[in-house]
Amino acid sequence: MSTGVKPESVSLCPLNMAAAPEQPVLCIFGTGDFGRSLGQRLLQSGYRVVYGSRRPHSCGPLPPGTQATSHEAAAQFAKLVFLCIHRENYDFLETLAPQLKGKVLVDVSNNLKKNLYPEANAEYLQRLIPGAHVVKAFNTLSAWALQNGPSDANRQVYLCGNSAEAKQSVAEIAAKLGFTVLDRGSLSAARELEDFPLQLFPEWRLPLRLAVGLTAFFFFYEVIRGIVYTYVDQKKDNSFRIMVSIANKVFPIVSLIMLALCYLPGIIAAFLQLYRGTKYKRFPDWLDQWMLCRKQLGLLALAFASLHVLYTLIIPIRYYVRYRISASTISKITENKTSVFDTTSAWRGDSYYSMGILGFGFYILLGISSLPSVSNALSWREFSFIQSKLGYLTLLFCTLHTYLYGWDRFLYPSTYKWYTPTGYMLSLIVPTVVLVLKLLLMLPCLDRTLTRIRRGWEKSSSENAIEKALLT
Amino acid sequence: MSTGVKPESVSLCPLNMAAAPEQPVLCIFGTGDFGRSLGQRLLQSGYRVVYGSRRPHSCGPLPPGTQATSHEAAAQFAKLVFLCIHRENYDFLETLAPQLKGKVLVDVSNNLKKNLYPEANAEYLQRLIPGAHVVKAFNTLSAWALQNGPSDANRQVYLCGNSAEAKQSVAEIAAKLGFTVLDRGSLSAARELEDFPLQLFPEWRLPLRLAVGLTAFFFFYEVIRGIVYTYVDQKKDNSFRIMVSIANKVFPIVSLIMLALCYLPGIIAAFLQLYRGTKYKRFPDWLDQWMLCRKQLGLLALAFASLHVLYTLIIPIRYYVRYRISASTISKITENKTSVFDTTSAWRGDSYYSMGILGFGFYILLGISSLPSVSNALSWREFSFIQSKLGYLTLLFCTLHTYLYGWDRFLYPSTYKWYTPTGYMLSLIVPTVVLVLKLLLMLPCLDRTLTRIRRGWEKSSSENAIEKALLT
Amino acid sequence: MSTGVKPESVSLCPLNMAAAPEQPVLCIFGTGDFGRSLGQRLLQSGYRVVYGSRRPHSCGPLPPGTQATSHEAAAQFAKLVFLCIHRENYDFLETLAPQLKGKVLVDVSNNLKKNLYPEANAEYLQRLIPGAHVVKAFNTLSAWALQNGPSDANRQVYLCGNSAEAKQSVAEIAAKLGFTVLDRGSLSAARELEDFPLQLFPEWRLPLRLAVGLTAFFFFYEVIRGIVYTYVDQKKDNSFRIMVSIANKVFPIVSLIMLALCYLPGIIAAFLQLYRGTKYKRFPDWLDQWMLCRKQLGLLALAFASLHVLYTLIIPIRYYVRYRISASTISKITENKTSVFDTTSAWRGDSYYSMGILGFGFYILLGISSLPSVSNALSWREFSFIQSKLGYLTLLFCTLHTYLYGWDRFLYPSTYKWYTPTGYMLSLIVPTVVLVLKLLLMLPCLDRTLTRIRRGWEKSSSENAIEKALLT
Repeated sequence: MSTGVKPESVSLCPLNMAAAPEQPVLCIFGTGDFGRSLGQRLLQSGYRVVYGSRRPHSCGPLPPGTQATSHEAAAQFAKLVFLCIHRENYDFLETLAPQLKGKVLVDVSNNLKKNLYPEANAEYLQRLIPGAHVVKAFNTLSAWALQNGPSDANRQVYLCGNSAEAKQSVAEIAAKLGFTVLDRGSLSAARELEDFPLQLFPEWRLPLRLAVGLTAFFFFYEVIRGIVYTYVDQKKDNSFRIMVSIANKVFPIVSLIMLALCYLPGIIAAFLQLYRGTKYKRFPDWLDQWMLCRKQLGLLALAFASLHVLYTLIIPIRYYVRYRISASTISKITENKTSVFDTTSAWRGDSYYSMGILGFGFYILLGISSLPSVSNALSWREFSFIQSKLGYLTLLFCTLHTYLYGWDRFLYPSTYKWYTPTGYMLSLIVPTVVLVLKLLLMLPCLDRTLTRIRRGWEKSSSENAIEKALLT
Repeated sequence: MSTGVKPESVSLCPLNMAAAPEQPVLCIFGTGDFGRSLGQRLLQSGYRVVYGSRRPHSCGPLPPGTQATSHEAAAQFAKLVFLCIHRENYDFLETLAPQLKGKVLVDVSNNLKKNLYPEANAEYLQRLIPGAHVVKAFNTLSAWALQNGPSDANRQVYLCGNSAEAKQSVAEIAAKLGFTVLDRGSLSAARELEDFPLQLFPEWRLPLRLAVGLTAFFFFYEVIRGIVYTYVDQKKDNSFRIMVSIANKVFPIVSLIMLALCYLPGIIAAFLQLYRGTKYKRFPDWLDQWMLCRKQLGLLALAFASLHVLYTLIIPIRYYVRYRISASTISKITENKTSVFDTTSAWRGDSYYSMGILGFGFYILLGISSLPSVSNALSWREFSFIQSKLGYLTLLFCTLHTYLYGWDRFLYPSTYKWYTPTGYMLSLIVPTVVLVLKLLLMLPCLDRTLTRIRRGWEKSSSENAIEKALLT
Repeated sequence: MSTGVKPESVSLCPLNMAAAPEQPVLCIFGTGDFGRSLGQRLLQSGYRVVYGSRRPHSCGPLPPGTQATSHEAAAQFAKLVFLCIHRENYDFLETLAPQLKGKVLVDVSNNLKKNLYPEANAEYLQRLIPGAHVVKAFNTLSAWALQNGPSDANRQVYLCGNSAEAKQSVAEIAAKLGFTVLDRGSLSAARELEDFPLQLFPEWRLPLRLAVGLTAFFFFYEVIRGIVYTYVDQKKDNSFRIMVSIANKVFPIVSLIMLALCYLPGIIAAFLQLYRGTKYKRFPDWLDQWMLCRKQLGLLALAFASLHVLYTLIIPIRYYVRYRISASTISKITENKTSVFDTTSAWRGDSYYSMGILGFGFYILLGISSLPSVSNALSWREFSFIQSKLGYLTLLFCTLHTYLYGWDRFLYPSTYKWYTPTGYMLSLIVPTVVLVLKLLLMLPCLDRTLTRIRRGWEKSSSENAIEKALLT
């Protein structure tokens, strides 16, 4: 049978075809797209494949080298059956229970939505055919990956199931197909695996919405202050400033606020724990949710900071800036003014840039340590050192950068166009609050109490605490 | 015996030496470099090691604490034998078949070239000694890594074999030596493992050649238009422009073309599928190969784009640019010209920069999501969202960036030196074609048909299709 | 019992609660922070939990749904016992040996310092209760991760133990709690696991100290030459140069020296091997240590290079620079000087920038290939190609960049303020030495001998060598 194997699709890894004759027969129920792709790939890897179908003679084109028979016959052929059919059609399997007894059933199904059914597809299948060993696997792969081999997001096969041997045999097949296997435990993990392919950045939604909201607000705020005001006040159209000048005001503002919002929930939690005197009381829901998206908040803030850096660095090649500099030089000459070099301005400007660069440098470091492979290689002592110590240092540098940008501008009434503060002033509120509260928490009296609480000490059970303190 | 263990090389991870006495004896056939390095490392990890050699008394310096005997004696000592000899010398093992029966044989061999032999070394070994349990392992490590412990590209031990227990015992040893074990399935994966250490960026060759070819072509093109032409026309030597100005024209051109070439094969494939009415027909070979190197094309394009960004950002600190700006200011004053601020130029320039920055920002995002650890953490829905949606957005931004750069320059005859179009015009051809075709594919009628085809529907078997549509 | 389960903490992954009734009972000894966090998480994952305590009736608040009994009773309940107590209190377990016989004991303990005890906690435990199956696990996780589920540095559970079945049962629980399991072999790996949470960048200390030392030295050196000298000589205060100008001299100097120091030990080792005629003699300790921190040296040098790039790119927007350019233009006009465009300056300046950009580009590539997930995906032939070939190319570009920066400045006596050479001259010493020695090593006669030595050949045993050469 295997002599007819003609790989119809490209093979990514050079697999050995010579070993085919001794390979066991695998059965696939369902001749849809996924079933055909899977069959093709199995054939290429040297397996023999037989399809089970309701209408074996009219089930469309199958990979050459395979054949289709009835479900009953196919089930008897193989010790391992891939179920490439929709959950809606599982019920007919009940009649096959005797043939499927003791066999390994691989459930590759996914649903169209989360929580469509009360139990996971694989658990439902196990309940239908209690005699079989159900393994959930391959469902996180695309049909494309099954045809063409592992690549990028399709490198790993997650599997779970109650029988260790059944899992082992499926793992062997996955490894042979070139995938890396990750065992997720017993069949109760099936729902998690079935939800995985449906997710589209769930943990990024809140931070993204926040970023979009803040960007929109500050964009309009700056447009009103920078363009509408100028137009009303001086009848001058400088709307071209939207593309770079305004953008380069909005991005750093949003970035700084979001960076500070990364550290605010931790501080709120600390004060809550101090107030309650225990860490064993649950935080309010909003705080929990906030804390869980800190990483995403921080990475978005880093993206905005990077845009700010790029927008700042192109300043000197802008037409507008070159024109202004040239015009200012010309006016100095024609009006015969001499400008004196102001050391304070030089100090201030250079410090401003230096703080910004160092802040951005540390920020990039935080970003790199968030990469999965880097954070996996760190112990959590190292990880929390980077994210907490270096994180607050980053926030400090960026806040100082913004204060140096403002300098004494807040003293001049002309800054408050239409009685509104500038955007950078608004952006300083949250970071300043965070840094001041953090400083408070670093006071020895608060720090000591908090450390004790975090080690499990509780205000009420002070007796216990003393005993534990002695043990530690 | 283990009292004589003196680690001669540095030990990376603090391994426990105290447990040595109860450790089993491991046998190593072959006293070459790899055998000695392996023995040293095994000793450091607390194992007892005995060497098997043809000339046990004249086999050169062995790690202190080990001893060498004949192959027969050594084989009887241990339950596990590492074969650190060349495949060419395997034949003598046949005579040892009785002693090796039931033992675990670890094949660590590599070949000097791919496809030197019809079957993998490990499979040949298994055929020679059918009674032994052959495990292919450790061959992807360097002798350096075996002496010094895991680091960087030498962190993982791939293994394969037909006996689960044999693999387990080898995996235990590898874990104890500090390596991470990756099981690649049965012995038929041995060839893949043996080819791995020989590969040198196979999938990067085509994209690299393309990049070098494009760079060379556009470099000469721009040298001729920018330097030779000026020299012939105005007798002015501006050859210094090669280092930055010309480079900064070539890099973005090559980057844009290569980015577009990432997306072109997908579009060709889509039209091919639409025309054929099925996805089950194989693509032509060139298209398959092209599709498989899209990632590499994209990453090279990103590298060129990054160089373009750096070359652009140093523009204002160049001597030439400073000279020209100063000269233009001086000439304005001496000739008493007044230049009027041109709002259109400001809009155009700022939009041009803004598009470029946003395009580059999204591009970096695409690059980050290609990192193995990041793409592994994504579901393929997420991955394809980034690579497809954000990818086309990146292409769109970068193409707009180039159009804004050109602006109305194509209207002026002076642009067409020696009747040739500028480089940027040539670079716009492919991206424009890709974007227009993509727009066509997004038309509801085409999009719907394509989606059905990609779900397995076929033009010919329309009966089936209706049935499937009902099921889905 | 499981009906009372009320998750008190947020659940990161949607775990199935319905399967609880059939779940086995797990026992936790110790009601401290870790024990409570672990119990909570186990409950959320559907397990039933019973605590063992010395004072079951006064052991503080436990997760609702659990109960506390005496150690004896709890031990009899469950087949698996988590030991969440300090090693100091292990001795009482000896009296429970009969009840714990045949049970799986999970040792989650950590010590406060490294090498506090002669043997690992888990090995001590195994010696106390030889009848139990001790598994070391979960100790690398924070209590926070146990309460809230896997994230970042808390994604992996390392485990080791002598019984494969015991390890399997612990691995099942860890997988169900959402963690990825990494088997580290037998119980002798316990010390390594216990040391892991204590480490704080051990391999970064030496390079960091070196970086701080070099930075401090060159900072003071440049302050003295650039600010103190000017003040003494011309009574001019240009202390504002500290923030950017001096910083941007120190960073590239330190970066170049550290990059060269990455490659120096390899060259010393090569000459040592050539001199000794063998690779089987141990290197001196300082050389070993140096070679082991090359990666960290290189990454720190990359960080300094990145700061140099950012500091360079903001040059044109500095107040000082804008002032100086404007002043120079004005003075040219008022003094009616005409400056002639100098092609050599243009060539030199542009080459200088181009070398710097290309060097930095290759440097970034080296950095990316050091990311764990990227280097894991490379074969070591690929990895050493990048790190060695591209590494020397990077060093070459960066050294040329610095030579072009200096140009003919070394000819002018005014460069040698107070008879000291400039910083950039000092920074060129090590890289020049490294490049010259590398060139020497590339001479065919040396290269051939070195290659033979690295393949295991030895000067003394020339007989063997000939034989091996024939075999290879």
